[in-house]
Amino acid sequence: MLILLTNDDGIMAPGIVAMYRELRKLGEVYVVAPETVQSASGHGITVNTPLLTSRVKVEGAFEGVAVDGRPADCVKLAISQILPKAPDLVISGLNSGANVGINVLYSGTVAAAIEAAFLGCPAVAMSLYLRNDVPADYAWSAGLAMMTLRQLLDAGLRSSGVANVNLPALRSGEMPKGIRVVRQCTRPWVDTYERRQDPRGRDYFWNTSVFTLGATDSDTDVAALREGYITVTPLQFDLTEHLVVEKWAGQQWKTGG
Amino acid sequence: MLILLTNDDGIMAPGIVAMYRELRKLGEVYVVAPETVQSASGHGITVNTPLLTSRVKVEGAFEGVAVDGRPADCVKLAISQILPKAPDLVISGLNSGANVGINVLYSGTVAAAIEAAFLGCPAVAMSLYLRNDVPADYAWSAGLAMMTLRQLLDAGLRSSGVANVNLPALRSGEMPKGIRVVRQCTRPWVDTYERRQDPRGRDYFWNTSVFTLGATDSDTDVAALREGYITVTPLQFDLTEHLVVEKWAGQQWKTGG
Repeated sequence: MLILLTNDDGIMAPGIVAMYRELRKLGEVYVVAPETVQSASGHGITVNTPLLTSRVKVEGAFEGVAVDGRPADCVKLAISQILPKAPDLVISGLNSGANVGINVLYSGTVAAAIEAAFLGCPAVAMSLYLRNDVPADYAWSAGLAMMTLRQLLDAGLRSSGVANVNLPALRSGEMPKGIRVVRQCTRPWVDTYERRQDPRGRDYFWNTSVFTLGATDSDTDVAALREGYITVTPLQFDLTEHLVVEKWAGQQWKTGG
Repeated sequence: MLILLTNDDGIMAPGIVAMYRELRKLGEVYVVAPETVQSASGHGITVNTPLLTSRVKVEGAFEGVAVDGRPADCVKLAISQILPKAPDLVISGLNSGANVGINVLYSGTVAAAIEAAFLGCPAVAMSLYLRNDVPADYAWSAGLAMMTLRQLLDAGLRSSGVANVNLPALRSGEMPKGIRVVRQCTRPWVDTYERRQDPRGRDYFWNTSVFTLGATDSDTDVAALREGYITVTPLQFDLTEHLVVEKWAGQQWKTGG
């Protein structure tokens, strides 16, 4: 099995190293990941500047290709230029921080998986919920990610299918409550900013929003993760709201006079 | 009617100026837009650095707020900090270049509209297809965008509803073939890169993909735009693939043992 591994926290991040160690049990793993942290980069890509690359060796783990670009760039470049053939599976993560709810749209981790999916590969985004009161154990969490991945492959994750997996904050050796297949929560954050003035009197704003897992409908990723489950959400990249297409297509639309 | 106008080409771009001149016929228009070009920025947001702002006056048009950030940042900041109350309508554009097919995912123009929608506003992304052989006329195109917008409002664009509108490349005074409500094409681009070496022997890659409107299914945005129609695609921000949730939720998922 040929596997492409990427992320949005950068090629040296603890999550990608831990994920690599698990994935090599499944097959041959190529790591092509951003050179620097690309959190909240969404599905941005690089078209007007070149993508610089360098080989990076992470001691005791892998030698990979670092790309001076965004997560989706890494996937495009890896599949079209770096890998010997199209991968059988693309994994993005293990991200430091949950990607549930509306954060799915902001997430570079998820964007990399979606990019892989519309290029025709089965893809999984893996993210770890971090909490101040629970020390992160990436090796343990990557093991749980792997356990989930094996079941996803058995369930028949197809080409162009994307699964968004989130792991709860767990101590070393602690088990999740279970695995739940849930929908994406679509509630917005409450955006808060702190306004300041620079020495020349110009306003600037710091984002001070608190991204907690708030109370929400019980069948969502946010609720299940908060309760201590591993969440699995299949994603699509057809953003069309088909019911509205049907409704609007039946109307008279006029141009001119 | 209170309207927020933003874009991803930057606050001085010809498309946003032309759009402003049309929109002020509908109500009071606030312009909050990126200071610089943010093409292909996707749904990135800024959380680790401050958002610098400045007042910008575009002669003969508007005085607006330029934000040193991404399109989605502009919407968040405008709604939570700058506008006197939540807008009745958010318009993003008129973008220089089409946002159809898979480009919808890369588009900062569309991301700004989606951000507005999940904050509870009706939102429309407006983009103009550019062709080398047709001189762009932003004033004429913005008039056609406005004609489409009026019909969308009549059709009942609801809160949290997003419409993605694309205008064909038309000469001044030339009419589109009509307006079509169509789904998003989900075919990928063919990614091509040109590999070069820097003076120190390091590989770098220029994206050389050609983003043309290729042949595809006739009921898609790509096909309709190519044929000279104004396209309207209602979008959603729930990325859940619900049919797969149903399928997978019925399975046994195991943790441990």
